[in-house]
Amino acid sequence: VLLAVVDPGVGGRRRAVAVEADGRFYIGPDNGLFELVCRRAKSVRGWDIVWRPESLSPSFHGRDLFAPVAARFALGGPDMTMLRATEITRFCEWPDDLPEIVYVDHYGNAMTGLRATALPVGVRLAVAGRVVERARTFSDVRPGSAMWYENANGLAEIAVNAGRADVAFGLTVGSPVAILA
Amino acid sequence: VLLAVVDPGVGGRRRAVAVEADGRFYIGPDNGLFELVCRRAKSVRGWDIVWRPESLSPSFHGRDLFAPVAARFALGGPDMTMLRATEITRFCEWPDDLPEIVYVDHYGNAMTGLRATALPVGVRLAVAGRVVERARTFSDVRPGSAMWYENANGLAEIAVNAGRADVAFGLTVGSPVAILA
Amino acid sequence: VLLAVVDPGVGGRRRAVAVEADGRFYIGPDNGLFELVCRRAKSVRGWDIVWRPESLSPSFHGRDLFAPVAARFALGGPDMTMLRATEITRFCEWPDDLPEIVYVDHYGNAMTGLRATALPVGVRLAVAGRVVERARTFSDVRPGSAMWYENANGLAEIAVNAGRADVAFGLTVGSPVAILA
Repeated sequence: VLLAVVDPGVGGRRRAVAVEADGRFYIGPDNGLFELVCRRAKSVRGWDIVWRPESLSPSFHGRDLFAPVAARFALGGPDMTMLRATEITRFCEWPDDLPEIVYVDHYGNAMTGLRATALPVGVRLAVAGRVVERARTFSDVRPGSAMWYENANGLAEIAVNAGRADVAFGLTVGSPVAILA
Repeated sequence: VLLAVVDPGVGGRRRAVAVEADGRFYIGPDNGLFELVCRRAKSVRGWDIVWRPESLSPSFHGRDLFAPVAARFALGGPDMTMLRATEITRFCEWPDDLPEIVYVDHYGNAMTGLRATALPVGVRLAVAGRVVERARTFSDVRPGSAMWYENANGLAEIAVNAGRADVAFGLTVGSPVAILA
Repeated sequence: VLLAVVDPGVGGRRRAVAVEADGRFYIGPDNGLFELVCRRAKSVRGWDIVWRPESLSPSFHGRDLFAPVAARFALGGPDMTMLRATEITRFCEWPDDLPEIVYVDHYGNAMTGLRATALPVGVRLAVAGRVVERARTFSDVRPGSAMWYENANGLAEIAVNAGRADVAFGLTVGSPVAILA
């Protein structure tokens, strides 16, 4: 049972949903947060969450709505009295991979939205006008040198061994990344 | 059992106390941290914590003193051998509501010390020379627009839908907030 | 069982080790992270971790290698089938104490690498061209005044009562600290 919340429309018209994808349950807003989960799953079922707590803050459904549902599911299995079958909203036009920096971590490593396994062998990445070669791990390049590597989540990530890629390249969330064959 | 520590006087003359307010136990410094809890409770009892650990850092009573007491209480109920009845120091001159920004969260939302339920209907708030209308939740205003709303803790909070209120208004902890009838 | 990871060489040639020092187990990289633990222990034994998971990210041994070993040890005691006896790499030239700022905390307190108990009574510390006297705890000096004190980990720490030592002195990790007899 996974509870996930990225929810700028909290308290508005977007629906609250549960998704079963390949045997896992996802609880959260129906705003596309589960799109890639659904797209890559073999089997998908969806439900509206019809249960409501006694007190529901319009700005914190993570606490008041999603968490109690996820807790109930985690403890006793899915409680169908809380749900009503529905079709999850799909966002088929969204890309499978996003050629941008999607996250900068505490150390300045810049994660892209590109799956490393979806990139051809020998590919280089270009960010901020510079070209970065692939490496296997940080210590494969000299301290201070940049590389991209398949990070522990399977995504291509720009990094500097013993340094900060965000500072070295001026990267931030949304910076474009180009794939050089 | 709640352990709370905001404790600039740690290791100094302020007492270490336990408070029972409406059936809940609070463990921490006797510096006013529990003033509003006591003020709003129907029944209040207080104790000095007379128990001392073998080793007590003068700068970290949260770890060395309060945590063991709270853990003991949480596991086996209040242990009166650790306590001696006392009157908690009261701070009656402190206001019930504080017309200031008291916290800025990770997303730039600026929480005030004003209870939303204590504000008349239709009230607007003024911060940094600008006037903000009330909304129910973020998505009730256009992206980039500001509003104030009753946050999930019951306090009035200044926010910008899909933006940062702290940056938009130049707000920081201590910025004054005015109530416009 | 302690899992510790500061591991710039992750996925490279450094070994993965387990150390038993005075009855405690430490799991992590063989890069000196356990040097001071070994140096101060009465008895030390070392092992290479020879177990490998099915899938091992070259950049996240904390998750894929060290955590499963530590979890196994924590649940059922050390599993010698995962280990092979070895000598841990020692770094005997490293100092016992480091006269530098080694950490700046959330509040701007600047921790040195000097054990307070290793400093003579009455010692003053000099940082950034200024001299700081010892105090027992924050509230022993006036708000806004600086002092050094034995922090809750036993290290000398530069602090300003109700202020930020990092800002007041321009301190950052690596700033030198001098001991004035």
